[in-house]
Amino acid sequence: MKIAVDAMGGDHAPEVVVNGVMKARDQWPDLEFMMFGDRAKVEPYLTDETRIEFVQADSQILNEDEPVKAVRRKKDSSMVMAAQAVKDGKAEALFSLGNTGALLATGIFVIGRIKGIERPALMPSLPTVNPNNMVNLLDCGANAESKASYLEQWALMGTIYARDIRNIAKPRVALLNNGTEFDKGDPLHQEVYQRLEKNPAINFVGNVESSNLLQDKADVIVSDGFTGNAVLKATEGMASLLLKMIKDTLLNSGIGVKLGAAMIKPALGEIKNRFSISDNGGAVLLGVNAPVIKTHGGSDEGAVISTIGQIREMLAKQTIPQVINYLKENPIK
Amino acid sequence: MKIAVDAMGGDHAPEVVVNGVMKARDQWPDLEFMMFGDRAKVEPYLTDETRIEFVQADSQILNEDEPVKAVRRKKDSSMVMAAQAVKDGKAEALFSLGNTGALLATGIFVIGRIKGIERPALMPSLPTVNPNNMVNLLDCGANAESKASYLEQWALMGTIYARDIRNIAKPRVALLNNGTEFDKGDPLHQEVYQRLEKNPAINFVGNVESSNLLQDKADVIVSDGFTGNAVLKATEGMASLLLKMIKDTLLNSGIGVKLGAAMIKPALGEIKNRFSISDNGGAVLLGVNAPVIKTHGGSDEGAVISTIGQIREMLAKQTIPQVINYLKENPIK
Repeated sequence: MKIAVDAMGGDHAPEVVVNGVMKARDQWPDLEFMMFGDRAKVEPYLTDETRIEFVQADSQILNEDEPVKAVRRKKDSSMVMAAQAVKDGKAEALFSLGNTGALLATGIFVIGRIKGIERPALMPSLPTVNPNNMVNLLDCGANAESKASYLEQWALMGTIYARDIRNIAKPRVALLNNGTEFDKGDPLHQEVYQRLEKNPAINFVGNVESSNLLQDKADVIVSDGFTGNAVLKATEGMASLLLKMIKDTLLNSGIGVKLGAAMIKPALGEIKNRFSISDNGGAVLLGVNAPVIKTHGGSDEGAVISTIGQIREMLAKQTIPQVINYLKENPIK
Repeated sequence: MKIAVDAMGGDHAPEVVVNGVMKARDQWPDLEFMMFGDRAKVEPYLTDETRIEFVQADSQILNEDEPVKAVRRKKDSSMVMAAQAVKDGKAEALFSLGNTGALLATGIFVIGRIKGIERPALMPSLPTVNPNNMVNLLDCGANAESKASYLEQWALMGTIYARDIRNIAKPRVALLNNGTEFDKGDPLHQEVYQRLEKNPAINFVGNVESSNLLQDKADVIVSDGFTGNAVLKATEGMASLLLKMIKDTLLNSGIGVKLGAAMIKPALGEIKNRFSISDNGGAVLLGVNAPVIKTHGGSDEGAVISTIGQIREMLAKQTIPQVINYLKENPIK
């Protein structure tokens, strides 16, 4: 299993990426890597190249780059070269901490869509109130416009992912909608409801409202890309706003409150870590011909290692071939 | 100024409603009320009927009632009778703590749309990180489907409301979208961007993402009703989930943490109150021929009184006639 890594993406690149990859390599002897980046910047950290093939990339895609343009123009960037290696069959998966939009574009334009998937979807894993379960939400913003057939295809891919990677025998799939009754929503969501209910490969449990996003009502939640993106950002925004306000209030209070705050700090820190949504593994671009996974730009070594573990699972369980084969027999149109 | 009150809506009706109305009456000598409800249930609380005309209503709309059906069938309900009084010119505004969907339907079908407003919108006032400012988000769910012209009409109504009721000379209006650049979003949002930028009556400050909903980037945020509903519910859901998790963690921790928790309790309570989104005044159904305002079913007397104050402002400042007159001269199509 060989993973193509963009060493130059992320806030602490290449240090965090290189260190994470070396540790992941030591942890999983069945993994090999191709690492794309600027040798001068990578070299200080890449102290052991065992099972890591380094490839020089003369440029990189920046966070402020306009995604589609950057992918078209920067053919010599670490991200596009890594994707090209996957396209050419030299590696089997793509991993980056860089520009999300550019990674989506690279996945779609360089690696290419799965036959039978009209539009790939971005799927993070989010924490829930149940410490032993997460929820996969897709699409979270790869698509501004969505059709009913897309959402049915996403529900299928989410099901296969949750079944094989999260080991849930019959993953509960819900539709993000503006009410729980079957006839809620606009015509798009009403049609998706009908489709999900009829599809025998999908264990559809009905509509879920965004107030219950993290309430462990489903293992997989499908959404049109516009709403999924808005709901994810609203959830993240509220979590960070609230935690910041609590911190500020405690810091600016009297000595009694400060003492109290010091006593509860570890307990609060635990909640904060659990609900730092971006840190719950990588977001998968599901629907392209290889695992393409992105973790948060601010991720630490631990997040890099765990995301590589996630990619390894997807390769070992053949998630993408499973989707390809299923759709060959049972096309969703 | 006479307000029609549905005394039977809400979790603590009629007690909280009747007590709140009596106190509001004592506070504002220029207010009169028509109160609709079941006399047997209201009588124990209605100890002084000065400037309160009580009208018997033989039924009520329940929270579990299907809104449109309930409004059509329960003509003798406190909510529909109160709306009918507004329609007939016996009162000038409608206030309820009951079934939101039914109140929307009552406003639209009984009181009627403003000429030139294609679809009314539901607009709550939300807290922001700035303790001295709020943000009005509309539409928050009166419409599952939205057109560009609706959003432009909502932006205009939000502007007039923020200008006159919140005393902001040139309210900043933003569009909720999936990115900040002008060309973000689907064709609907791209068209709305163009319209808002061109309308001289609207101080358009560009797109805002839902992660910044409460960051005081705008005074009024317009959204298609489906996304606005999802974002509001996601925000409320995350706030209550996080506060509950913090509470549970503190309660289930060792004695040191418990002691600390006791010390910070008042500070946390303050944040909790500020971000109990539903308690920041009533949500206005903007776009019908009279102020129609709903507060949360769980509201206390204080929330009832402050919402009545909000209705009083809307009547004093002639918010609805302002909208009607503006649209006569400057129709938005």
